[in-house]
Amino acid sequence: TSQRAVAAAEARQASLTKPAGSLGLLERIGIQLAGIARVCPPPVPERAVVGVFAGDHGVCAQGVTPWPQEVTVAMLLNMAAGGAAINVLAAQAGAEVVVTDVGVKLDYPPTDGVRGRNVARGTRDLSVEAAMTRDEAIAALAVGIDTANEALDGGAQVLLTGEMGIGNTTASSALIAAITGAGVAAVTGRGTGIDNEALAGKIAVIERALALHRPDPSDPVGVLAAVGGLEQAAIAGFILGAAARRVPVILDGVIACASACIAVSLAPEARGYLIAGHAGAEPGITEALSWLGLDALVDLGLRLGEGTGAALALPMVQASARILRDMATFDDANISAG
Amino acid sequence: TSQRAVAAAEARQASLTKPAGSLGLLERIGIQLAGIARVCPPPVPERAVVGVFAGDHGVCAQGVTPWPQEVTVAMLLNMAAGGAAINVLAAQAGAEVVVTDVGVKLDYPPTDGVRGRNVARGTRDLSVEAAMTRDEAIAALAVGIDTANEALDGGAQVLLTGEMGIGNTTASSALIAAITGAGVAAVTGRGTGIDNEALAGKIAVIERALALHRPDPSDPVGVLAAVGGLEQAAIAGFILGAAARRVPVILDGVIACASACIAVSLAPEARGYLIAGHAGAEPGITEALSWLGLDALVDLGLRLGEGTGAALALPMVQASARILRDMATFDDANISAG
Repeated sequence: TSQRAVAAAEARQASLTKPAGSLGLLERIGIQLAGIARVCPPPVPERAVVGVFAGDHGVCAQGVTPWPQEVTVAMLLNMAAGGAAINVLAAQAGAEVVVTDVGVKLDYPPTDGVRGRNVARGTRDLSVEAAMTRDEAIAALAVGIDTANEALDGGAQVLLTGEMGIGNTTASSALIAAITGAGVAAVTGRGTGIDNEALAGKIAVIERALALHRPDPSDPVGVLAAVGGLEQAAIAGFILGAAARRVPVILDGVIACASACIAVSLAPEARGYLIAGHAGAEPGITEALSWLGLDALVDLGLRLGEGTGAALALPMVQASARILRDMATFDDANISAG
Repeated sequence: TSQRAVAAAEARQASLTKPAGSLGLLERIGIQLAGIARVCPPPVPERAVVGVFAGDHGVCAQGVTPWPQEVTVAMLLNMAAGGAAINVLAAQAGAEVVVTDVGVKLDYPPTDGVRGRNVARGTRDLSVEAAMTRDEAIAALAVGIDTANEALDGGAQVLLTGEMGIGNTTASSALIAAITGAGVAAVTGRGTGIDNEALAGKIAVIERALALHRPDPSDPVGVLAAVGGLEQAAIAGFILGAAARRVPVILDGVIACASACIAVSLAPEARGYLIAGHAGAEPGITEALSWLGLDALVDLGLRLGEGTGAALALPMVQASARILRDMATFDDANISAG
């Protein structure tokens, strides 16, 4: 990102008709967008694509979630038909949803609205063996990069991450613990809803996996292969694809945060392109955002995923660019600052 | 509001393709909108008007703010010209801004885009005498009611509160302390930016005013007249006007919260029509929202006012209605809940 544009945006924020800093995080996001676009004011990112990546998780065999894996397919088809929460929130925000099967386990009929890029029929059980081979992890990363490139070739100015995969908060907590070094209990939550006993079991499963694989954070592909998921790999690629083309990415919840930890471990320059959409009901989000150095725009107690938190944040990101473009300066308005 | 529609909305939330409660506050707002509209799903409130009310404050003589009163007029004209933050954020959210002079002190040329409804040329210094007469307070309330009715006659489906008035956080903290019974220090903040010494002085001014007037919370017009502002009175009327027509109101920051305390004291039924847009950098927001029983949608560290927090919350309110209208049910998607 461009230090000259950042400095210009900081100076412009100070000149606009508002007390210094009074627009809070919106001011910082505006400055970040200027740095990314290398120009101040930055363009308002009107055209947005939510990349939803679906995959399954062998670790479901350990009872980490009450939902059966059939739900991954059912929700994939629901998203393709426009009936899921992400469809509704993306429509509200004016964003397009692109749904990609990168690792769904079960069969389903060919469906319009699902991009078939299946790398493997779900991961293996990360608590007893590596979730993926390195080749599978890299192939899923490539699916994400390709998806970003297609969206950007189609005119997208900002990308949002989304996902669907029963069991994927377990893999995400494992990834966040492995990359950040945080304790498993500190980064593991209730997903879409489990009780205390099930939470203790989920933590034990992740601890067993980390003890088994001893993933090395300096080898992010190895971490991904050991304890990750196909959709986490694809989202990491989606982030890298956006950053490589100098486009901002709005992260959703804990799955996106885990993927961002991988992406930034692979390419530290990607960090500057990340915008945190939603703060955490899942404790892993808090730990990952702290490691990434990001503050979230929305904190509504969502624990759904799919990209919903990112979609709710999109209008705020657009607003932060509009502020730099459209507000009057003190000089325009003939006001002496107090 | 309608208990039957509320019950229908609660049942519908449970039937939609998401884990129970996973959309957090959005689910509760959707249920509230159904109760207000007396139908489930509720209509999506697409047409929104931000009512911005401007007034001046005699208490500025006590040095409670570094900004000169000239800034009230300058910002009024800036808003009329479309250059203020609220214009930009309302445009992003698709809302119309209606600017009303209900109590500006200084002269300015006749200006398109400013509704002239001046009740008094600013309030008197609340720390030495009553800020308004009861008649002035009632006249300003009536300006707000009229403004709501005009907006609703024009087709607005949701109203947002906004304001401009140098010194108005001081009057707001005084109102919140008087109505809720909270201590002055607990509800007084830095406004758009003062240091520790000035904050201590502001608290002392408000304590002096409350000791002088001993406002009685069971007489909300008396409270308003003693320590309020013309724009707070108008916003209270704007809220009452919306509630009387069964339309939801999105509150902005501390000035709106103070006004809402007055409105709900006058008409407790108004409470069900309120949606909190922005949580507090100003501590008075926290106290007032707690007294009102509301949780805020946005918490971005804004301390600007104008209606900016309400404008950022509008897409979320619209999204909460869309969810009830547009999401598929588990039956639609052939999913058995886990």
